[in-house]
Amino acid sequence: MPIKISCAPMEVVPGRPDINFTTACRYIEEAKAEQVDLLILPELCLSGKLLGTTWEEEEFLADCAAYGEQLIAASQNISIIFGNVAYEKVTINKKKYFNRYNAIFACQNGKIIRLNDKNFYTVSSRAEQNYHDQQYFTNREQARCVHLHFGQRKLLVVLSFAEETELISSLATEQHSQLLVQLAAEPYTLQQEKQLQKRLSYLAARLRLPLLYCNQGGIQNTSKNIFTYPATIFAYDDQGQLLTANQAFSQKKVTVSWTADIGLIPSQKPAEPLEETAAIYQCLRYGTKKFLQQCGISKMTIGLSGGIDSAVTAALYADILGPENILLLNLPSVYNSKTTKNLAQQLAYNLGANYATVPIQDSCEHTIKQLENMEIRQKDALQPSMQLSGLVKENIQARDRGARVIAAAAAAFGGAFSCNSNKTEMSIGYCTFYGDLAGALALIGDLWKYQVYDLGKYLNEQVFQSQVIPKKIFTIRPSAELSEQQTVGTGGDPLIYDYHDHLFQTLMESRPRITPTELLVWYRTGKLASRIKCRPQLIKEYFPTVRKFTDDLEHWWKLFTGFSVAKRIQGPPIMSISSRPYGNSFSEVQKPVYLPQSYVKLKEQLLSR
Amino acid sequence: MPIKISCAPMEVVPGRPDINFTTACRYIEEAKAEQVDLLILPELCLSGKLLGTTWEEEEFLADCAAYGEQLIAASQNISIIFGNVAYEKVTINKKKYFNRYNAIFACQNGKIIRLNDKNFYTVSSRAEQNYHDQQYFTNREQARCVHLHFGQRKLLVVLSFAEETELISSLATEQHSQLLVQLAAEPYTLQQEKQLQKRLSYLAARLRLPLLYCNQGGIQNTSKNIFTYPATIFAYDDQGQLLTANQAFSQKKVTVSWTADIGLIPSQKPAEPLEETAAIYQCLRYGTKKFLQQCGISKMTIGLSGGIDSAVTAALYADILGPENILLLNLPSVYNSKTTKNLAQQLAYNLGANYATVPIQDSCEHTIKQLENMEIRQKDALQPSMQLSGLVKENIQARDRGARVIAAAAAAFGGAFSCNSNKTEMSIGYCTFYGDLAGALALIGDLWKYQVYDLGKYLNEQVFQSQVIPKKIFTIRPSAELSEQQTVGTGGDPLIYDYHDHLFQTLMESRPRITPTELLVWYRTGKLASRIKCRPQLIKEYFPTVRKFTDDLEHWWKLFTGFSVAKRIQGPPIMSISSRPYGNSFSEVQKPVYLPQSYVKLKEQLLSR
Repeated sequence: MPIKISCAPMEVVPGRPDINFTTACRYIEEAKAEQVDLLILPELCLSGKLLGTTWEEEEFLADCAAYGEQLIAASQNISIIFGNVAYEKVTINKKKYFNRYNAIFACQNGKIIRLNDKNFYTVSSRAEQNYHDQQYFTNREQARCVHLHFGQRKLLVVLSFAEETELISSLATEQHSQLLVQLAAEPYTLQQEKQLQKRLSYLAARLRLPLLYCNQGGIQNTSKNIFTYPATIFAYDDQGQLLTANQAFSQKKVTVSWTADIGLIPSQKPAEPLEETAAIYQCLRYGTKKFLQQCGISKMTIGLSGGIDSAVTAALYADILGPENILLLNLPSVYNSKTTKNLAQQLAYNLGANYATVPIQDSCEHTIKQLENMEIRQKDALQPSMQLSGLVKENIQARDRGARVIAAAAAAFGGAFSCNSNKTEMSIGYCTFYGDLAGALALIGDLWKYQVYDLGKYLNEQVFQSQVIPKKIFTIRPSAELSEQQTVGTGGDPLIYDYHDHLFQTLMESRPRITPTELLVWYRTGKLASRIKCRPQLIKEYFPTVRKFTDDLEHWWKLFTGFSVAKRIQGPPIMSISSRPYGNSFSEVQKPVYLPQSYVKLKEQLLSR
Repeated sequence: MPIKISCAPMEVVPGRPDINFTTACRYIEEAKAEQVDLLILPELCLSGKLLGTTWEEEEFLADCAAYGEQLIAASQNISIIFGNVAYEKVTINKKKYFNRYNAIFACQNGKIIRLNDKNFYTVSSRAEQNYHDQQYFTNREQARCVHLHFGQRKLLVVLSFAEETELISSLATEQHSQLLVQLAAEPYTLQQEKQLQKRLSYLAARLRLPLLYCNQGGIQNTSKNIFTYPATIFAYDDQGQLLTANQAFSQKKVTVSWTADIGLIPSQKPAEPLEETAAIYQCLRYGTKKFLQQCGISKMTIGLSGGIDSAVTAALYADILGPENILLLNLPSVYNSKTTKNLAQQLAYNLGANYATVPIQDSCEHTIKQLENMEIRQKDALQPSMQLSGLVKENIQARDRGARVIAAAAAAFGGAFSCNSNKTEMSIGYCTFYGDLAGALALIGDLWKYQVYDLGKYLNEQVFQSQVIPKKIFTIRPSAELSEQQTVGTGGDPLIYDYHDHLFQTLMESRPRITPTELLVWYRTGKLASRIKCRPQLIKEYFPTVRKFTDDLEHWWKLFTGFSVAKRIQGPPIMSISSRPYGNSFSEVQKPVYLPQSYVKLKEQLLSR
């Protein structure tokens, strides 16, 4: 008789072992009801992984261990493999220290399965994205292989974590093991699933072992980054062939059988992997829903300009929370065009969300008047009065919208308000401190402008299946509408999105990093467009001379590495989906701007030709 | 003839090898003029240390290496020991990678001094505070001892970094070395100097080697934390006796002599170490000055409430930038008392700073009216109008001050504005998003309330040597003055500072972490006051029952681990001085609040007694 194995797409709530224990018990009950022999739960399934200094709290570690004991006790008539933190207290010079282990436990019939007197199976692995939390774990291998017995049937399982590959190979083959189980707590990123499948397929084939991979569900964060966990489960045969898989974020269990002759036998075909824009939609929707739940937020207020960023954000929130829980505010000054005001209203109507108009003109004029008429004294001497520049007046509008109206309206409506900034704007700080940079969450803060447009189209076509976001929002020129020179009618953003989107993405996401020197080399050799993946004619159209090209490049490089860093430091958490979001994994510091010598030299050469 | 050795208190500008090279050359010229034989420059003196993803940029590494070569070339007629990054390019599967080394170089007469064919001497050490940047360095030891020749005289030097102690001992004694040189890039913290001196003294005595320690000057940051580097230099004899030292932040060179018979011979007595409040003043003043310079900020605008936090902040900025570059704004609503308005005005007058009053009452009423009269529609249906609660109205005032008036006034005045929040408020989020939490820098954000008062007294007594901060500011009850219930006359902050200051400090700064369980144990055994260092009678006075004590504790614990984290994520950078400031080294995540089982049980026991 085959051994029946079930992998749980378990949602893990970070820092709440009580809730996670209840979730695990539900999976155990289900598995027992379905005659499952072996249940697999993911890495650190009782604690969560990204916990920062909570790992320092002894009582928290004790609770995780206690719930782990209860989980082991619950393994009557079933075998369970699960991840949990293990710890030891060490006293050096009367000071307490903790060795914490990212551990794998195996249990059967209410008891832990020991191997060589060890209670758990572990190695802590170093993952780039989660490096921040790896510091809390001690790296020590205890054991890797566990013998499971199901009546007369036996199964020798190799245990490992998803991020370690090198260590496993010798052990797996040496000991005649029969199945490789990988527990994971890996955040979802757009490129990750493809790379992951490649990695797992290669691993299974190299070890000639069938493989089961079981990742967490839920969300976790490193303060600036909210990561989603897709609860993906994959099964491979010993040739590296994918046998079955659930879809990311589908929360579907995967059950397989195993026999000594055949290996793993799937009960279903693999689910189709998500296309890029579908993946963005699923990830943002799932992550945002969980994040709002965790924060106790059930209503959102969103400033609606009539442009694409706020439109997509509003449509997503309406989809997530229901339009009755959304308050959309259009906040016109004299610079806002009829076009965008009508588009905002039309969108709100289409969504069926709450909608109001709050003019900001009077308030902004009041502020300007107050400041220009303000009597400044030094000791008893009256000082000259202030004059406000155009830029100062533009920022007054942005803050009047965000901090004066939207923040207060959100509090009165009950809940939070949204930051509608995208990754392109954030890259160079094209947003106002305490104005449009403010909000509880940057829902589209990890999307480049082109991805925002794609997501908008996807929402209309696939989610709402009607033109909920008015067509014109996709075609009007993006504009902040903060001055007479800058309205939808007269002039748009200083960014050429079909070029700068790709430029910034190259500067920011490439590994190894691409810097101005490399860009200039590509420019010189005519390869720039193909390298950064923009339209070939575009570079020549926009930059008729070398000087115009380098001026533009240096202008944005200075903002990207300079003032925009200060803005990102005070920006809201970002719903993260790319391989490199702004935040902890893209570690930034405030420092003076620097252009490398190689750039300076090459530029001189090019300009003197 | 003794060998003359000079240690440079070199200010390092992170990410600017060009500037740092110029600084280093100035020290070389000075040393040559003073007949110095050996010049010691600090760790990573050309690149800086906390650079985040800048370490990924190949051209930056190349420039550091090139300036390093120029530094070596400049060692004509002198020996130099200096820290710099060394790197190797590695290509794996057509992908470029870099091995970066935190390296020490030794050179003489324009040439590098090689040992066993190695160009540099290194091991990368792991420091808790700088863990974030350690990820960029490969850990590989090359060599440790360097033979220096000065005509007939010889000196065998052991090279090391300040944070590694274990590795050195065997090498130092094995090779008959004569001097231990430690290069450092260690940020200043209040407790650090004492611990550091203990560590160095112990090390010198254990190795029986005279020791020279040379730390960086300047500032560096990890986005949320601005760290100061004190440029401290210490010399110890082979018994661990301190021979000479400069004072932290004094930027004074230290020159010593060395002979084979005597070892190190100091030319001056050690400078007195700074007392706590003097250290706070020096560190904040130095760090803020450098930070503002780096950001190109020469003018500051500060909201002045008449309370202690804004008073101390304003006085510090006036001291740093000069009162003519300071704009102080008092922003009264109907809730602000005459007392505080007068105190604000008096302080501004005493400082001689620019001062103005900008009432916010009209604007706040306008906002409330706009929101309460706002017509909300869902499709075509008119929705009920909004009612604003007291808390919503309080936050409207805070944001009106910060985001509407101060931010705009600062931009018009030219420069930035200040966040006046202290560490006690930040611990539990007693501040308003985009209101008093806003600003370019939290200058006193790493000071507990009692430290703010101490610093205020120090400013009056030691810096201004007159009652610049009016006496009454020290004695009035702290109050936000945001409602009728909460003014200086009627009621103050919900915090009992002489208790909660110490409670939060214990929760936040202790290592290992102290959690509610331990606090409850101390409470039960009567040890709480002595453990957290507050006045013994205080606990009984404020908490007549167990329930009142646990209610208070849980209330703040929930805010400390809950909503306040969200606020800190969007807070400004903090001028850091404690052993544990909020920011990267106190890694936090947004997660649901949790009280450990041990706490819940103990509380039940206590309540049922």
